[in-house]
Amino acid sequence: MAMPENVTTDKDFPIPETMKAWVLGDPGELNYVDKPVPTPKRAEVLVRIDAVAICATDLEIIHHGPPAMIEGDLPFNKNYTPGHEYMGTVVALGPGVDEFAIGERVTVEIHAGCGQCKRCRQGMYTSCHNYGKNYGDVDKGHRANGFTTDGGFCEYQVNNINTLVHVDDSMSDEEATLVVTAGTSMYGLTEIGGLIAGESIVVSGPGPIGLLGAAVAKALGAQPVILTGTRDNRLEIGKQLGADHVINIRKEDPVETVRKLTGGKGVDYVLECSGAPNAVNEAAQMLNRGGKICLAAFPSDSVPVDVAYLVRNNIYLYGIRGEGKTATHRAEAYMRQKRFDARLIHTHTFAMDDLPEALRYAKDRVEDAIKVVVKNRHAAQMVEAAE
Amino acid sequence: MAMPENVTTDKDFPIPETMKAWVLGDPGELNYVDKPVPTPKRAEVLVRIDAVAICATDLEIIHHGPPAMIEGDLPFNKNYTPGHEYMGTVVALGPGVDEFAIGERVTVEIHAGCGQCKRCRQGMYTSCHNYGKNYGDVDKGHRANGFTTDGGFCEYQVNNINTLVHVDDSMSDEEATLVVTAGTSMYGLTEIGGLIAGESIVVSGPGPIGLLGAAVAKALGAQPVILTGTRDNRLEIGKQLGADHVINIRKEDPVETVRKLTGGKGVDYVLECSGAPNAVNEAAQMLNRGGKICLAAFPSDSVPVDVAYLVRNNIYLYGIRGEGKTATHRAEAYMRQKRFDARLIHTHTFAMDDLPEALRYAKDRVEDAIKVVVKNRHAAQMVEAAE
Amino acid sequence: MAMPENVTTDKDFPIPETMKAWVLGDPGELNYVDKPVPTPKRAEVLVRIDAVAICATDLEIIHHGPPAMIEGDLPFNKNYTPGHEYMGTVVALGPGVDEFAIGERVTVEIHAGCGQCKRCRQGMYTSCHNYGKNYGDVDKGHRANGFTTDGGFCEYQVNNINTLVHVDDSMSDEEATLVVTAGTSMYGLTEIGGLIAGESIVVSGPGPIGLLGAAVAKALGAQPVILTGTRDNRLEIGKQLGADHVINIRKEDPVETVRKLTGGKGVDYVLECSGAPNAVNEAAQMLNRGGKICLAAFPSDSVPVDVAYLVRNNIYLYGIRGEGKTATHRAEAYMRQKRFDARLIHTHTFAMDDLPEALRYAKDRVEDAIKVVVKNRHAAQMVEAAE
Amino acid sequence: MAMPENVTTDKDFPIPETMKAWVLGDPGELNYVDKPVPTPKRAEVLVRIDAVAICATDLEIIHHGPPAMIEGDLPFNKNYTPGHEYMGTVVALGPGVDEFAIGERVTVEIHAGCGQCKRCRQGMYTSCHNYGKNYGDVDKGHRANGFTTDGGFCEYQVNNINTLVHVDDSMSDEEATLVVTAGTSMYGLTEIGGLIAGESIVVSGPGPIGLLGAAVAKALGAQPVILTGTRDNRLEIGKQLGADHVINIRKEDPVETVRKLTGGKGVDYVLECSGAPNAVNEAAQMLNRGGKICLAAFPSDSVPVDVAYLVRNNIYLYGIRGEGKTATHRAEAYMRQKRFDARLIHTHTFAMDDLPEALRYAKDRVEDAIKVVVKNRHAAQMVEAAE
Repeated sequence: MAMPENVTTDKDFPIPETMKAWVLGDPGELNYVDKPVPTPKRAEVLVRIDAVAICATDLEIIHHGPPAMIEGDLPFNKNYTPGHEYMGTVVALGPGVDEFAIGERVTVEIHAGCGQCKRCRQGMYTSCHNYGKNYGDVDKGHRANGFTTDGGFCEYQVNNINTLVHVDDSMSDEEATLVVTAGTSMYGLTEIGGLIAGESIVVSGPGPIGLLGAAVAKALGAQPVILTGTRDNRLEIGKQLGADHVINIRKEDPVETVRKLTGGKGVDYVLECSGAPNAVNEAAQMLNRGGKICLAAFPSDSVPVDVAYLVRNNIYLYGIRGEGKTATHRAEAYMRQKRFDARLIHTHTFAMDDLPEALRYAKDRVEDAIKVVVKNRHAAQMVEAAE
Repeated sequence: MAMPENVTTDKDFPIPETMKAWVLGDPGELNYVDKPVPTPKRAEVLVRIDAVAICATDLEIIHHGPPAMIEGDLPFNKNYTPGHEYMGTVVALGPGVDEFAIGERVTVEIHAGCGQCKRCRQGMYTSCHNYGKNYGDVDKGHRANGFTTDGGFCEYQVNNINTLVHVDDSMSDEEATLVVTAGTSMYGLTEIGGLIAGESIVVSGPGPIGLLGAAVAKALGAQPVILTGTRDNRLEIGKQLGADHVINIRKEDPVETVRKLTGGKGVDYVLECSGAPNAVNEAAQMLNRGGKICLAAFPSDSVPVDVAYLVRNNIYLYGIRGEGKTATHRAEAYMRQKRFDARLIHTHTFAMDDLPEALRYAKDRVEDAIKVVVKNRHAAQMVEAAE
Repeated sequence: MAMPENVTTDKDFPIPETMKAWVLGDPGELNYVDKPVPTPKRAEVLVRIDAVAICATDLEIIHHGPPAMIEGDLPFNKNYTPGHEYMGTVVALGPGVDEFAIGERVTVEIHAGCGQCKRCRQGMYTSCHNYGKNYGDVDKGHRANGFTTDGGFCEYQVNNINTLVHVDDSMSDEEATLVVTAGTSMYGLTEIGGLIAGESIVVSGPGPIGLLGAAVAKALGAQPVILTGTRDNRLEIGKQLGADHVINIRKEDPVETVRKLTGGKGVDYVLECSGAPNAVNEAAQMLNRGGKICLAAFPSDSVPVDVAYLVRNNIYLYGIRGEGKTATHRAEAYMRQKRFDARLIHTHTFAMDDLPEALRYAKDRVEDAIKVVVKNRHAAQMVEAAE
Repeated sequence: MAMPENVTTDKDFPIPETMKAWVLGDPGELNYVDKPVPTPKRAEVLVRIDAVAICATDLEIIHHGPPAMIEGDLPFNKNYTPGHEYMGTVVALGPGVDEFAIGERVTVEIHAGCGQCKRCRQGMYTSCHNYGKNYGDVDKGHRANGFTTDGGFCEYQVNNINTLVHVDDSMSDEEATLVVTAGTSMYGLTEIGGLIAGESIVVSGPGPIGLLGAAVAKALGAQPVILTGTRDNRLEIGKQLGADHVINIRKEDPVETVRKLTGGKGVDYVLECSGAPNAVNEAAQMLNRGGKICLAAFPSDSVPVDVAYLVRNNIYLYGIRGEGKTATHRAEAYMRQKRFDARLIHTHTFAMDDLPEALRYAKDRVEDAIKVVVKNRHAAQMVEAAE
């Protein structure tokens, strides 16, 4: 047994010394190797990973490295394991942990702040000033599993208890992997307004965050919720999740249509999830004076922005990177209460062994894939499914 | 006597039926004409205008019309009087007004919201949804004197009491015209943080708003206050007003110097007052993760913005148009308490008759002009000065 | 036709010159008299009153006068009409009003702030500093219909457009009268947190505000929602409206039970609607450290409060008086979206002529009355119901 | 040398293995004993204590134990060292610490939150849900030195880096001990408003927090700042620190005088630092509608509170326990910038050996003592003073 004495374990949840894990070789290269099972420290638990959803950012990381990684620290050929949208079962407790129990099902959010920097002290743990400072000599305690620390494409991972969300028994493993996606949407809505019952919103871009963004906005009581995109099948799912109106921007001018749907007034909020080059300008044009834009996606290159329009119309612009402000907990509450059916965006499941094939489905949107999930063979629900 | 019965007047402050006023003819053309003295309605007073400061926006308005004016409503050849940074003396009270007294010195902020729209109900009166709806048939009560309603380049103007700030006797007429400029800076700082004692800030662009922005930031306790610009004489004034460091961007790279001055960390806030094409990107580069930018100026054309950088670094971006949230009152308090000497940015005074010459000084920065003020011959201090 | 020229009317909605109205004589005395139909001014409409719900405060006002009325201004024998929870149909538009249309169904919130005072400028119109200043010589524009200005126990009333909420066709007249009650609960929740999905809350006191408080809290996603009270039948309605747990405080110790239900932790929020003498202390004991209490009810006399406990546990205490911050609009959105069935608290309907009997039902809780509604004979739905 | 290998030390700052420390015996009994020098862990440093100010709460703790201590955990006869307002010199760095340097002068705030609970994640570390959970088996990482963990009446203490504030060379040891007191006042003002330039405030109770509360309020630009109390000499110091008006409540009715000083309107904020039994009611009476009270002191027993008045007037009430939200950093910035002279409240200095006598001065206000400071013989400034 590898765990030190101050770690609590349970014989019903035996922990091996090594595990299978996907690790990053050269850019784009994933190898399935044996790795030691990590050990939870103070305020950490060891999670047996049951299911992991694939995010577009995973593809980015595998090919180019994490988005805000300090140059020279790119995690290629460093035995690094990506994967950040995972859920599983607590199997060991670090010293002093009593917030979670062994055997408890949990899903994760990504960021554990260092707890010491200016932003963490303000509660803005996703803006931690020690972001990524956990390689080499300096470990400030920041973790962003699957970004700057080892992630979930493996069998076991340590997680700070701040990143854990209890999963209700009524939620399947696959649905539980979507909590962090819904939590990101919730965070965006929290930051741009939060109290949006009866207020109008456009969600642009029906990717996973956008689709669940429409769902969360509706659960919060927004009206109307308008979803824009280019694919009718995704817009249709958006309707099932809560969008009152959908606009296929290949067929209609979105700004004009939004103006029409709101009696010429424009909406109060835009949750931008498309990353399109003109998205900021279009969002601004859709808003009424004093409105707010949350950017949950972005174009990779600089784009022309009509800054004068933003200023003249008192528009507020926020950029978010993933979830924050405990929004995953609010999202999980809505999912537990069945306010919307996040499972509508889950399209495919593969075994962990088949991660490369799963990634191909996600990347190329094979068979209209939206969320592709990989599961470990040990996952209870996997076994049942196989029987 | 022209005033109706429900308006309160005082024989010590006799009001003529007509006055001299500058009115806009064709773009760029100002004519000095006779105009009736306007009448204050409910919640309004009549202000005898004593002094008016010239703002860069006045030049814009005179040549191109107000910035957010609905097309077709441009105020050329409509007997419209510009000018918005004025102060004076209350000489008549509209029905029910007891908040101000006849003879009281006041300075003005620009925006009186309609009081009925969504934004006004939220206290965001500068984002009024009835902005500019006060021409023709529909008058929703919104006023932005010198923008969408008649302004101060004349002898008398009506003002909603919401736009008035009491002026202390210790403040000269000229200094009092600067309250709204300081109030704009204060509003920007309010929106991006407010509680900035001990926090770091860059103010970019040493125009009047930037210079007083450095002053207000210092009064609030920010440290360090870093001011960037291209003219050493203005930067020098910035130092006298409160900047701890100044950077002449013609001589030093501002991003690099800001990083150096902050031990590599970057600052917490940027108050952008330059309107330079790359200002948003540079501001973002100067900030630490989670920092905030307030845009108090902007380039007239679309500019390339590195949106990805904003999102990855959780940067918040706010556009303000003028003052708001009663920030003029906070600014006036600091000026009354002599926390900084706003008079340092007042460089020239002309008689109201000489407005065209005053505008030329302001526009061409003749003799290093910063704030140019015009005064009416009736102003007590004008008379005294002449003796 | 009584309306002045600048008021817009419609021949399909003829307006008589006089109407039947209940007016207050001596304390407790209501007389049914003829009164002129009032005229809408700028930013006002005339509402034909269709239905009015009776609030406990109406009984207070009828017997003792409005709660915060300036002494000497008590409205006895002054031709004053009480009643504040009403809905109806717009029948005339004051000058410049185009936000509402003649024939549109509306329900009302109570407070229209003056729009000029410090609090109104902050968006806190229910804390207007000119509260009640609308008798005699000074009219600052503040209105609190049924409190400091004429209310709804009559056929027609003027309302500032700020106080109007559009009523969806799917909502009955009776249900629409409950919007302001739900709006008060919503305002309380807004002020103490707002983003309460997944957070725990106790609502104490199953009166109308408490019952709809439980409903709104659940709609917002709170969990668990715990309702306390003394009457099982009301607690049962609370369950139907959204309470996860109910505690009959005659049978169980509420503090102990709340602690048990939350694993010893205590709840995050208490919405206090009982007005019980020990309510603040009990609320404090139910909370975890840093929790918040909103007081929507209060005992009439001073009560002993353990202030030390509040301070030592960083507890925040807010008092609200009715609705605010446009919360009625958020409440109406939830009701329109059928998130809860407010009709469960409506128990009795009487004709306006029978107001005294309706008041008796409300006061003495005859037949377990909760919300008692009176309707005017002209109300379309009344006629239909009678057919 | 006692420090483990992962702790960084410096030969210029040699650390002994044992130190002199005052420890609590029975209630009221302090013994001067030898104790091991503690070891800094992750995110902690070892501070050589140079000076400690005595707070009224120290007297409470010494006689009755810390205010919110879980019963049964009272620290009598447990080798516990009280004292929480201390400053000193960093002499060792725990693993990974590079935020502070050996030899750097620092002063401390009291609370280091656990970093994992709901409140810490919100940035409300003074409301940590693991408050005091650092005795016995469970250590959640919460520290409140001098309250629930060992404090400063000794020679060396470990401190979480979150509790440290850099001390400028221009500040004496004695002045630096006052940062946390000013920080508590700053936190109170932050919570009730923060943006108080030009707004009116009453500070009630000229103890150390009240006196520095007046100073901080003035530095923030409040006007007028009104200080109430019973001792003319303290009120006089309040004037020197920034109070515009003082009221000796033995000579004048404070509510009436505050109303008079504010033209009948009442003030916007009250910072209550007296703990008087009627303080909440009087504070409420001093406020205008919508005003806010921060309680920084409290009576030990339950007191009658006019809750109805609070609710009817929309009054917000906050209890704070010590500093929070990094307010000590804002306070230190004002002190470094010489916005007020905190030294005015420092009246006496004793050697650490003479702590009992120092406590007597503080308790009995011998020679009008306000802040009494004790210093260790090793303190550089102590030695200099003796030469």
